[in-house]
Amino acid sequence: MRQRFKPWAKEKLNEYPEVVAPNPADLKGKWHDYFGNDHPIHIEVGTGKGSFVTGMGKAHPDINYIGMEIYDSIIVSGLEKIVTEEIDNVKLIRENAQKLTDFFKPGEVDRVYLNFSDPWPKNKHEKRRLTYESFLSIFETILKDEGEIHFKTDNQGLFEYSLHSFSKYGMILKQVWLDLHKSDYEGNIMTEYEEKFSSKGFRIYRTEAQFRSKK
Amino acid sequence: MRQRFKPWAKEKLNEYPEVVAPNPADLKGKWHDYFGNDHPIHIEVGTGKGSFVTGMGKAHPDINYIGMEIYDSIIVSGLEKIVTEEIDNVKLIRENAQKLTDFFKPGEVDRVYLNFSDPWPKNKHEKRRLTYESFLSIFETILKDEGEIHFKTDNQGLFEYSLHSFSKYGMILKQVWLDLHKSDYEGNIMTEYEEKFSSKGFRIYRTEAQFRSKK
Ligand SMILES: C[S@@+](CC[C@H](N)C(=O)[O-])C[C@H]1O[C@@H](n2cnc3c(N)ncnc32)[C@H](O)[C@@H]1O
Ligand SMILES: C[S@@+](CC[C@H](N)C(=O)[O-])C[C@H]1O[C@@H](n2cnc3c(N)ncnc32)[C@H](O)[C@@H]1O
Repeated sequence: MRQRFKPWAKEKLNEYPEVVAPNPADLKGKWHDYFGNDHPIHIEVGTGKGSFVTGMGKAHPDINYIGMEIYDSIIVSGLEKIVTEEIDNVKLIRENAQKLTDFFKPGEVDRVYLNFSDPWPKNKHEKRRLTYESFLSIFETILKDEGEIHFKTDNQGLFEYSLHSFSKYGMILKQVWLDLHKSDYEGNIMTEYEEKFSSKGFRIYRTEAQFRSKK
Repeated sequence: MRQRFKPWAKEKLNEYPEVVAPNPADLKGKWHDYFGNDHPIHIEVGTGKGSFVTGMGKAHPDINYIGMEIYDSIIVSGLEKIVTEEIDNVKLIRENAQKLTDFFKPGEVDRVYLNFSDPWPKNKHEKRRLTYESFLSIFETILKDEGEIHFKTDNQGLFEYSLHSFSKYGMILKQVWLDLHKSDYEGNIMTEYEEKFSSKGFRIYRTEAQFRSKK
């Protein structure tokens, strides 16, 4: 994601500990307390500037959303939306998805969203893709039994790869959309990348992939 | 598939028992004898007019191909190609795929091809789709361990459904092509439907789906 360096971003994030969890590891097993309710928890990994989590938060007040993003200077845009619009069911984690198991107890999370994840098109970078098996294993650990990953992208190569990776892991592709914006799917909330690439005429691909029960 | 009624088709098929197996159930476990060699056996289910099996037969002389098709008046076009071009590694079965387990011993078949299968778009007709679980179970039975289905179609809805169905069955999508004719896939042999729909600008979807080992 294109970013300008914003030297003030880190400070701004620190100013809102009730939105940007300062030490997410301290909240492991306690996220419902942090939200102040028992609603299901949905995480978007690689949340960018937060259009999706904030849009979802407003559309679904009975769900708790967490946007996770590595970069201060990007995630700060999400913080601004949450603060300005006073959205109380959306929180942020400024961290790498690799650490998710440090932050969430097994089964604490109800759904994972991946939107327009970095494609890492070279074969030698397969392990960096968020749909690579090591990430799927992390998601499976923090998700409840039969948890789901909802994934969308405009990137054909990443989508082809991810269908392979999900199925190889044993996941069920509950549903697949090969042209989301021309389908009858309702309630779609656009991400920043989705606005950009769909306006250029690119197809948007989507799938809901479910882990098999371990019981 | 559009077909003219050809009253002479049945008779013509009967004239070539060395190409159109007259009683395929009698050949169960004996297909290698029928072909006169030990080469792997690949079946195309719903072979239409046979462009694909005959093209594949010529391109791969070390593989035995069988085209299976319900209708006399359609499959007879495949017979004509085989006879005229003297292709000895391509045979035909004029029967319904539902009977495959009557015709083949478990493990006798090395690969199944499904090309532009009838989409049966209505939900209530799901069971008629050749990628419905009851057909997958038939294919799994006649295929060797870790056997594969190679499937292509222009039909977006059928492809979306089939990705779901394969993964639900536990199959691995070894590879997926969301725009075959714009990919670097080599050696593609076009079917009649593929010629027709790709020339209209439709995308061709393809996947190679593999059954999990039962050992
Ligand atoms: C291509 S952008 C898409 C942003 C947004 N989801 C959208 O659709 O507009 C991918 C984002 O994921 C973030 N990201 C990549 N890998 C990550 C990881 N391991 N953990 C957290 N965020 C990550 C990147 O910093 C980037 O902002
Ligand atoms: C849409 S056509 C495609 C023909 C050819 N594969 C192509 O790509 O041009 C589907 C064909 O499958 C045949 N078919 C459908 N169900 C079948 C079944 N259960 N067993 C054998 N053939 C079947 C139909 O008769 C029809 O000729």
